Amino acid sequence: MANFVSRRQFTVEWSQCDPAGIVFNARFFEFFDWGTWLLFEAALGVRPPDLAGAFGIVGLPLVDAGARFLAPARFGDVVELTSQVSEFRRSSFDVEHRLMIRGELTVEGRETRVWAVRDPANPAQIKAQPIPADVIARFRET
Amino acid sequence: MANFVSRRQFTVEWSQCDPAGIVFNARFFEFFDWGTWLLFEAALGVRPPDLAGAFGIVGLPLVDAGARFLAPARFGDVVELTSQVSEFRRSSFDVEHRLMIRGELTVEGRETRVWAVRDPANPAQIKAQPIPADVIARFRET
Amino acid sequence: MANFVSRRQFTVEWSQCDPAGIVFNARFFEFFDWGTWLLFEAALGVRPPDLAGAFGIVGLPLVDAGARFLAPARFGDVVELTSQVSEFRRSSFDVEHRLMIRGELTVEGRETRVWAVRDPANPAQIKAQPIPADVIARFRET
Amino acid sequence: MANFVSRRQFTVEWSQCDPAGIVFNARFFEFFDWGTWLLFEAALGVRPPDLAGAFGIVGLPLVDAGARFLAPARFGDVVELTSQVSEFRRSSFDVEHRLMIRGELTVEGRETRVWAVRDPANPAQIKAQPIPADVIARFRET
Repeated sequence: MANFVSRRQFTVEWSQCDPAGIVFNARFFEFFDWGTWLLFEAALGVRPPDLAGAFGIVGLPLVDAGARFLAPARFGDVVELTSQVSEFRRSSFDVEHRLMIRGELTVEGRETRVWAVRDPANPAQIKAQPIPADVIARFRET
Repeated sequence: MANFVSRRQFTVEWSQCDPAGIVFNARFFEFFDWGTWLLFEAALGVRPPDLAGAFGIVGLPLVDAGARFLAPARFGDVVELTSQVSEFRRSSFDVEHRLMIRGELTVEGRETRVWAVRDPANPAQIKAQPIPADVIARFRET
Repeated sequence: MANFVSRRQFTVEWSQCDPAGIVFNARFFEFFDWGTWLLFEAALGVRPPDLAGAFGIVGLPLVDAGARFLAPARFGDVVELTSQVSEFRRSSFDVEHRLMIRGELTVEGRETRVWAVRDPANPAQIKAQPIPADVIARFRET
Repeated sequence: MANFVSRRQFTVEWSQCDPAGIVFNARFFEFFDWGTWLLFEAALGVRPPDLAGAFGIVGLPLVDAGARFLAPARFGDVVELTSQVSEFRRSSFDVEHRLMIRGELTVEGRETRVWAVRDPANPAQIKAQPIPADVIARFRET
């Protein structure tokens, strides 16, 4: 039973490219962030700015990220970004992002994020919290 | 009697350049923001993250900005950024930024910012407040 | 007879916002750049990466830019960006950008750009060139 | 025999932080890029914009990148960035980046890059090339 997949299409902008004429690598991590917010919006039906309030969390802080760059993405290329939770654990989860251009896999990304709440013992700190079962359930494709 | 001038030197990074091999225009407005924080730190002796707390403001929101691009700034160029308040008004002020490369004026920028506090009648809103005279005084070069 | 207007709708991303929770000012100049490319694509029927080749130019270098920030743009806000050439001169032109959020004008921007070719006398330099009449004509709304 | 380590100190800017008040994750990959250019400049004695010309390469394209985020980096924090080649292979190499704040490891990054030349058979393509032995030798600390 696969998890829900969000999809977004966009075109590579001049502002995202470097002197080699291709998307600067850090921009892909920005795209992954777009993908994760969209995925949670699509799965949970909550607008991104309302996510924290709706679930009593401070956010979904990133603890690990990575990418494989298989081919360059150029100015004007049309990108299909798909994002999917590949694994839910007790209080953290992995998101996989795939960027396709003209049907070819161009960049693969992954993020590990935490379901984080304010620490009641020390409100200046955050701490991981178990992900509610009904949140996880809403990511299951039906 | 001129106002205090802050100075910062930095080198143009690959990540700041576009496919034309020159600094992408939006990056200059990021540099201007760096300049304004540095200027206030230098004039007031307060670290940027402590500025709001030290003066009971919510920040220095930008209401107008502009730039003239006289020559390109290229990867590896050494930039001298100078920033200066050109005019204090009752509750707003103008900052002028100049970027020099190899002694030539490359970009001129200006920002208009507001001395802003949380509105006591509606804490979700901010409102302009007169700039304290002793703040203005500390920008005068002696 | 007004000039052609391009329109783009997008949602403010987390990655575009600063610690005040609003779009960081430099990002608006990135949005203006998106708007200008889109405007030229819509008016001239040429994909952005093909623009230089199709017209024998090196690009549309920016010589002046500015913005008025009338209200904050927040994470999740839906932005309507309209872009329009407000004036064509012999070899330069002005583009006006307007960002509307919930029907309210939020940011106004302007760019002055040059129709630029490689200098035949010195290919390392660029120089302004008269904008072809048929280019200007295609921006007239019919 | 360890490889050469480059060091750079900088302060976290407002423009690099997100609504959580901490450096937005993609910015760290921009910092890693800064680190790699600096490392090659320091080891090889060649200014970054001259690197490609000096060695007949098109650049050092990134094929893989990753980061572990151990603690947040906040506005105003002073960052010590160290960068080091952890392994040279025939035509690719790994760079390790470490960001320390107040003596604590905050973010660990890694990049895999390729020593790339223009493909003589197809100049629109690039291909990996063996890294010259004297390049590798200059990274050895003496």
